Amino acid sequence: MRKRNLETCFSPTLYEADLHAGSVVVIIDILRATSAICTAFENGVASIIPVAGVDEAREYKNRGYLVAAERDGYVLDFADFGNSPFNFTRERVEGKTIVYSTTNGTGIIKMASNAASIVIGSFLNISSLTDWLISMEHDVVLFCAGWKNRFNIEDTICAGAFAELLMKSSLYSTICDSTHAALDLWYMAKMNPLDYIEKAAQRTRLRNKGLDDCITFCLTHDFTRIIPVINDGILVGYVP
Amino acid sequence: MRKRNLETCFSPTLYEADLHAGSVVVIIDILRATSAICTAFENGVASIIPVAGVDEAREYKNRGYLVAAERDGYVLDFADFGNSPFNFTRERVEGKTIVYSTTNGTGIIKMASNAASIVIGSFLNISSLTDWLISMEHDVVLFCAGWKNRFNIEDTICAGAFAELLMKSSLYSTICDSTHAALDLWYMAKMNPLDYIEKAAQRTRLRNKGLDDCITFCLTHDFTRIIPVINDGILVGYVP
Repeated sequence: MRKRNLETCFSPTLYEADLHAGSVVVIIDILRATSAICTAFENGVASIIPVAGVDEAREYKNRGYLVAAERDGYVLDFADFGNSPFNFTRERVEGKTIVYSTTNGTGIIKMASNAASIVIGSFLNISSLTDWLISMEHDVVLFCAGWKNRFNIEDTICAGAFAELLMKSSLYSTICDSTHAALDLWYMAKMNPLDYIEKAAQRTRLRNKGLDDCITFCLTHDFTRIIPVINDGILVGYVP
Repeated sequence: MRKRNLETCFSPTLYEADLHAGSVVVIIDILRATSAICTAFENGVASIIPVAGVDEAREYKNRGYLVAAERDGYVLDFADFGNSPFNFTRERVEGKTIVYSTTNGTGIIKMASNAASIVIGSFLNISSLTDWLISMEHDVVLFCAGWKNRFNIEDTICAGAFAELLMKSSLYSTICDSTHAALDLWYMAKMNPLDYIEKAAQRTRLRNKGLDDCITFCLTHDFTRIIPVINDGILVGYVP
């Protein structure tokens, strides 16, 4: 039996769309976008519309949508709330469609448009998403969102955690140096991920802005079993 | 005293030229380009002219230059030899100017043209180059050549080895996640780098082509104290 191929991409600028046509792409941006999205689905959001620009988000707001929108960690003035997972409470989101403004994330979704599926990954749904990936017959790309196109540590260790679980299934093989590096960094981090990411630049940025209250939560495994999937450009929750 | 900034770049596509204007850029491509260049200088080469294209290399050959030229590990038919460090023997290179064809390397040199200096790094000159970097007052960028714009393990652990020595001096600080990751991968690799890079894709590529005889040599520390420096687009050897 052909083993499925597992690859890891550390930054949008490193993504090779042609190479990954037909793969399942897992988007990882744990501080905080993909953790917030997983939280929203666990709390009953109906769907999430990712939009790129501030103007587009404002337009949706004017049409009555709930809008989550930040730039560099600061909530935009017209938005209902920002990107912390703690904002996506059941009281706020249950049964609703939310517009989520994310320049980086929207670009990534477009880049991966020739993929078999695009799903949202974080520690919060790691076991469920891994089980689902294993149930599929596709190659997998772990696509770290990074920060402003740079490599980042927090998404890399999460990719490593996914890679560990997938490789354990013996269904995957990898000749991808990024995957091997993500695995090794995860092995170093896994005993105490909170301590490990102290060195991450995003850890410092969030602390400096007083936005770091959610970090322990973002490192929690299996808060939800729901898998957010892109369907016609919109995120819906798949319950396995 | 302001600490100097230390950054690591994992691939040419991740290089941010504007950010690194005025830094010293260390190009790292240990299997095999930068190891070969360090070897050539230790063996007395007068200078090395890096050229991008095959046509340009052929033209130099017609004008009587010694030409080292490969594509994907295979020596080009008109060239005198390929990129293995073992080709650059004293008998062949002493006192001569060699033309070195390298698409990737030439692109990197162009990208870093606003740097304070561009130098060639490998394990073969690590102590001497580190001493020289410390003697300068500049920020440092460890620029991994990668492979076809991808992250690779072997250049990353070498960057980590440089980072370890530089950070030990207490003259540098870093808020660069790539540097932290390179350091941690180096800490995992340093007890047995040869064993560690077994997982590297380039390790397998070189083995499959029978070009892996030089790997142990490329992991040797301090074969030379010479520092190859770009001077008006040409590599010359600086003897500290």
